[in-house]
Parts: sequence; structure tokens; C-alpha cells
Amino acid sequence: MFEHLKIPERVLLGPGPSNAHPNTLLSQALPLIGHMDNDFIKIMDKTSEMLKIVYGTKNRLTMPISGTGSAGMETVCVNLIEPGDKVLLCVNGVFGERWANAATRAGAEVTIVRAPWGEAIDASDVEKILKKDNFKFAGIVHAETSTGVKQPLTEIGKIAHEHGALFVTDSVTAIGGMPIEADKIGIDASFSGTQKNLSAPPGLAPITFGNKAVEAFMNRKIGVRSWYLDLNMITKYWEGKSRAYHHTAPISSIYAIYTALKLVIDEGLENVFIRHKKMGEALQKGLEIMGLTLFVKNCNHRLPNLTTVYIPNGIKDLDVRMRLLNEYNIEIGGGLGEYSGNLWRIGLMGNNCRANNVYLMLSSLEAILSQLGHKCRRGAAVEAARSIINN
Amino acid sequence: MFEHLKIPERVLLGPGPSNAHPNTLLSQALPLIGHMDNDFIKIMDKTSEMLKIVYGTKNRLTMPISGTGSAGMETVCVNLIEPGDKVLLCVNGVFGERWANAATRAGAEVTIVRAPWGEAIDASDVEKILKKDNFKFAGIVHAETSTGVKQPLTEIGKIAHEHGALFVTDSVTAIGGMPIEADKIGIDASFSGTQKNLSAPPGLAPITFGNKAVEAFMNRKIGVRSWYLDLNMITKYWEGKSRAYHHTAPISSIYAIYTALKLVIDEGLENVFIRHKKMGEALQKGLEIMGLTLFVKNCNHRLPNLTTVYIPNGIKDLDVRMRLLNEYNIEIGGGLGEYSGNLWRIGLMGNNCRANNVYLMLSSLEAILSQLGHKCRRGAAVEAARSIINN
Repeated sequence: MFEHLKIPERVLLGPGPSNAHPNTLLSQALPLIGHMDNDFIKIMDKTSEMLKIVYGTKNRLTMPISGTGSAGMETVCVNLIEPGDKVLLCVNGVFGERWANAATRAGAEVTIVRAPWGEAIDASDVEKILKKDNFKFAGIVHAETSTGVKQPLTEIGKIAHEHGALFVTDSVTAIGGMPIEADKIGIDASFSGTQKNLSAPPGLAPITFGNKAVEAFMNRKIGVRSWYLDLNMITKYWEGKSRAYHHTAPISSIYAIYTALKLVIDEGLENVFIRHKKMGEALQKGLEIMGLTLFVKNCNHRLPNLTTVYIPNGIKDLDVRMRLLNEYNIEIGGGLGEYSGNLWRIGLMGNNCRANNVYLMLSSLEAILSQLGHKCRRGAAVEAARSIINN
Repeated sequence: MFEHLKIPERVLLGPGPSNAHPNTLLSQALPLIGHMDNDFIKIMDKTSEMLKIVYGTKNRLTMPISGTGSAGMETVCVNLIEPGDKVLLCVNGVFGERWANAATRAGAEVTIVRAPWGEAIDASDVEKILKKDNFKFAGIVHAETSTGVKQPLTEIGKIAHEHGALFVTDSVTAIGGMPIEADKIGIDASFSGTQKNLSAPPGLAPITFGNKAVEAFMNRKIGVRSWYLDLNMITKYWEGKSRAYHHTAPISSIYAIYTALKLVIDEGLENVFIRHKKMGEALQKGLEIMGLTLFVKNCNHRLPNLTTVYIPNGIKDLDVRMRLLNEYNIEIGGGLGEYSGNLWRIGLMGNNCRANNVYLMLSSLEAILSQLGHKCRRGAAVEAARSIINN
């Protein structure tokens, strides 16, 4: 009646999940141990240590929340926001928008600073708003998965602090693919995910909270509304000498993030970031050579690991994406919201961010587009990419 | 600096997690596919179908929430409760208590009906309260993991409906180990977990919501406070012809629950339940023969899959549990709250609920207790258990 699982092989070059590293997948086949077992607690501690390295922080409260990236977003909201708190959120894509929604639900009075999709948020726009009132935090998406925009953080972080607001970032698509440097930049709290550049399955939301953010939730006047995501309780399980049971940790997922973090750290963070940068540039150059137009105009604001590109005139989105999937087993993403049907989103994340995937992506897309009547010099895109990669 | 994972082999005979079935663990090593991939959506649909079988329901909204069992509890609270709603919660252990806490945080005015730990809730106590006022729902724990009490549901469900309240259950430790029969009993909503009798890793919270419960959250006056657990959005991803992205589903965990449910359904639900009943009785008989006293006096209210037993006079809790762990690689649970140090909790859950584990548990405990001076006829416990199992 119900068949054994049959999973097709896919090259996941969309906005995430990326293909998990084989070692990471295999670690999920390891036997379970108890969530209060000393051996498991050691794994938790080391996971926390490795997350600190990737986040670029010494924050003691650095750990994965037992839910997907969005649960990390909610953790930030429900712990930092008390009803009536003023919160500034920067919105230039879907993930800023949903954060504003979640913050409103958590009881915040949200003020939104907008930039057009495809552009970064302007620090002076943030400053104008922060000057006017006292805000609990200013939140911004480091890597907008819906648009491919990389957000410069340093100046906005500084401005937030000058005006007494905590500086909070969404680093879901940033973590493991580009420097976060939370302590250097002054990020007070951040949430992320596992299924992008860490190349682990989705299911956990790494977070980091600095001292000021910890004080904010410890000194709340009104208790945290969420039981599941209340950091006052969760930290009693994740920190300290004697651990207090809160919920049953997702054991296999912790094995997976442990292994995924170890892979990143063993390769060397700097090497990982250079690899992402180089592969992203190669892909972007190849797409341009193919006659396509990148969505993010300012090359300094382009994510290396998620490239957004306009669908050429006369080409239908799903015609191409279905052929990529059915003929090449390649998944890429479509545009969201008003860009549905107008954009593709191509990810080179984590273990998938390899030269062969750049060549595969460019050559497959070129073959399909050529058959659909798009004009370009065959092979030129791959050559352009190769010359960047081999340089 | 960071070692490869080394996981000790454990026989997990505590209150959960149980050892995951090897097939279930291996399914987590399968490659990822996208959360919007048609092949993944088919797996979601079949997972939902299998969950309906195990829950004994035709409820369309039957699916796993992307978090551990406690996230299921929170899902019930945040979707059904509007601020100021009156909720009745039955408390005879830790898990009723935490549910009352979560409901209060979700904005409910909670009235608690109590029974002593180790006893079931009395239906007439519930009726007395429901008569007095209008309650949004009456909630009760089907299988109290802190006490080993199995709660009869039929009468309380009927009373709840007579008084216009939804009937909601915590089936975390029940699911896959005993009949739930949600439709027959009239359960309007229920939440559960994967790491007990389903023998899958922790990380998902299967839920089922009947029509009345669905109407309750669809007709809310005030929106759901949680973004992550808002069923109005989640169901748009889990149901219907065109799926809308909400959050990135935990792909590997869905593979695992699919495989775990298939194992239970392939064995036959009835066979699974008989196995749990028989093994539980055998363990309990063996413990009594060993001269120990079961915590739950009424044998009709004893869970088959989680046995609570008093620690004999003069024996120290941790002396025994540490020896079980270090010498036999067996994990059992200690008592919670005021029963810390006074009780052991021994689980026979899912794939762990096997004759050999009954014999292993009884013989190891007997050996340790005998060495610590506890008097009993050696071998008698195993013999008593064997005669029940072979009968």
C-alpha cells in the first residue's frame, strides 16, 4: 500500500535546500542516544563552539533552535519583543516582509524601512527613522534569498547602537557562505538556517545572542509568550553544568549540524568564503556572457551564493525549469511575489558551490535556451566562467 | 580540534527517545530533494495518509509540525486559543502542567483539574468544571510520560462535547503504541511526537485537527500570534493542489517519519498494540516478582510502554542508573519533580518493545540490585516475564 521511499537524485541549485554533504547525511544514520546523555551534551557543547566560529562571535548563547530557519526568526521576535515595543525592520524582499509580519504578531509596533527589490537598504533611511523614536531593535536581512541582495551591515549596525537599538540580523542565507563577523560588526542577535551554505538538511535554526540581547529577554516585564521558544528555559538545557530538560532535542539533526560545521571548519572559513565568492562571480559572468541580465545592478551588493537573473524575453519560466529538472535533474528557483515568472534564482551553496556545478548549470541552461530560440555563442559562458575559476 | 562524531551504542529504555529503527535511520541518509519538488509533495501526502491510520482519523488536517512534540503542544495552543478564552486542562504530571503553562502564555484563562501523580483524571471532576462556564477546549494527556498513567478518554470526551468544548489530547507517548481512535472517541485535536513508539528520531510533532477545530482557528477574531506555527499558512503548504511555500520543511525528518509509519503499518497496528501490551505486562510482572512496587496502583491505568516503579528502600537512584548505563549501555529514566530519586521510568517503546529487551532489562536490574543488597530470587523475574510473553 505504501512504497519504500524512492528519492530522485537532484542537483539542488535553487535558493535552498542545497544538497547535503554525504558525511552529513550519513551522520543522520548514526544511532540515537538520549538527549540528557553526557555524551550528547558534549556534542551540544562542541556544536555551540563551532557555531561561534562560523558566526564570528564569543557569545555564550550560540546554539541551534529546534525548528527551521523561520523558527529562529520567531525566537528572536518572541524573546526580544514585549507588547508595544517599537521595532524597525528593513524590507527589500520576502524575508524582510515576513520578519515584519512575525514581529507584529509578537506584539511589536513595527516601522518598516524599504528599498526596492534588488537593492540594498540605505543606511541614511534607517537613521532617519531611528532618530525619531526609541526602538527595541533594528532588524535587517544580511542575504535576501528572494532577491539575491547582499546587505552591507557595518554602518547600519553602528547607527542602531548610536540610537540605543539592538542590531539584529537574518543570516539564514549568509551563514557558512560569507563572513558574518558578528562581534566585529556589533550584531546583538542573529538567526540562521542549516540548509543553505552549511549543506545540512533543514530543521535547525542556529542563533546567537550577545550580552545586551540576553539582558533584554532576562529583564522582560512580561514573560515570553511562547513556551517552545522561550530562551530563559532553553538556555537551561543548552548551558551550564547541570542541564534541565526542556524539550527533547532533535538528536539526528544535531549530529548533522555538528558534521556540517566540522566540514566547514576543517576546510577553513577563509577558503570556504573565497570559494563561494569565486564560483558566484564565475556563474554571474557566464550568465551575462549568455546574454542574460542580472537582477542586482550593483555588483557590490550581489550575493555570491544566490544569483538572481531576469528570464529572457519570450522564454517561459516553467518551460525552462521543468526541462532543467526533468532532463538534467537540476532544481533552480523561480522569482517570488511580483517577480514570479520574471526571475530565476540560482544557488551555489555550501558543498554545491563547486566549479563542476557552475559549468553544469551554465551549459544546461545554454542548451535549453538555445533550443527555445535564445541567441548566444555556444560554449562562451562556460569558457568565461572557467577563466575566472582557474585564475 | 573537533573530532568526528563517536556515538556510543545505547539501549534506550527510558521515557524516550527510543532507539530508532535502522531503516528509519538509514532513510535519513537519503539525498535531499527540494521542499517544493513534486516528488517531495507526494511523500508529504503519503505521510499524512499514514498518520491518519495511526491516529484513527479521517481528518484532512493530519500532518507533522516542524518541531519536536512540544511544538505540537504549542501549535494546538496558539491556533485554538484567542486571548481571554477559557481552557480546561487536566494535570496529573509534568506534561499536563507544561501544557497549562503554554496555554496561559497563549492568552487562555486556564482552569486546572488535578489528580494525584500516578492516578488518572476523574471524569466527574472534569464535568463539575465544564458545567460552570464555557470552555474553548478541554485538554488531557493520553499517556503521562512523567507518571506512566494511561488516561481513559471516552467519557471525558463525551462530557467535553456535551458542554460545548473541544476535546484535545496530548498523544506524544500514545501514538504508535496504543490505539488512539481519534474519530471514534471524538478527539477534536491532538498532538504527538516521533521519538517514542514510532521509533523515529525526535524533531517532528504529528498533529490532527478535526473540522470543529479547523473552524475554530479559521474563524478567529484575532490572528494567530505565532508566524511559525500558524496553521492557516502551514496548511496551504501541506494541503491542496497548488502548494504555497511557508517554511522549508525538514526533508530528512519527513523521510524518517515516512519510513517509521510504514514500518508500523506494515506490521499491522493491531499487532503493534498487542506487542506493546504483552511486553509491558511482562516487564511489570517481572518487576513485581523482583520485589519492586509499581507506581501506578490501578492496573487498568498503567501504560504498557512506560512503566514507573518505586526505587527500593536503601537503593540510590543514580548508583543504579549509572551502572545500567556504564556496564550494560542501558538508559532508563529517573522520576521527575518530587519523585526525583524515588522512581524509575522504564520504556518499552516501538521497535525497542521486544522480548529480548524485557529480559535484558529485568536481568540487568536484578544483577545490580542484588549486588547492592536487595533480596530477590535470582532469575524469577525473567521467568515470570517469559511465561507471559510465550503465552
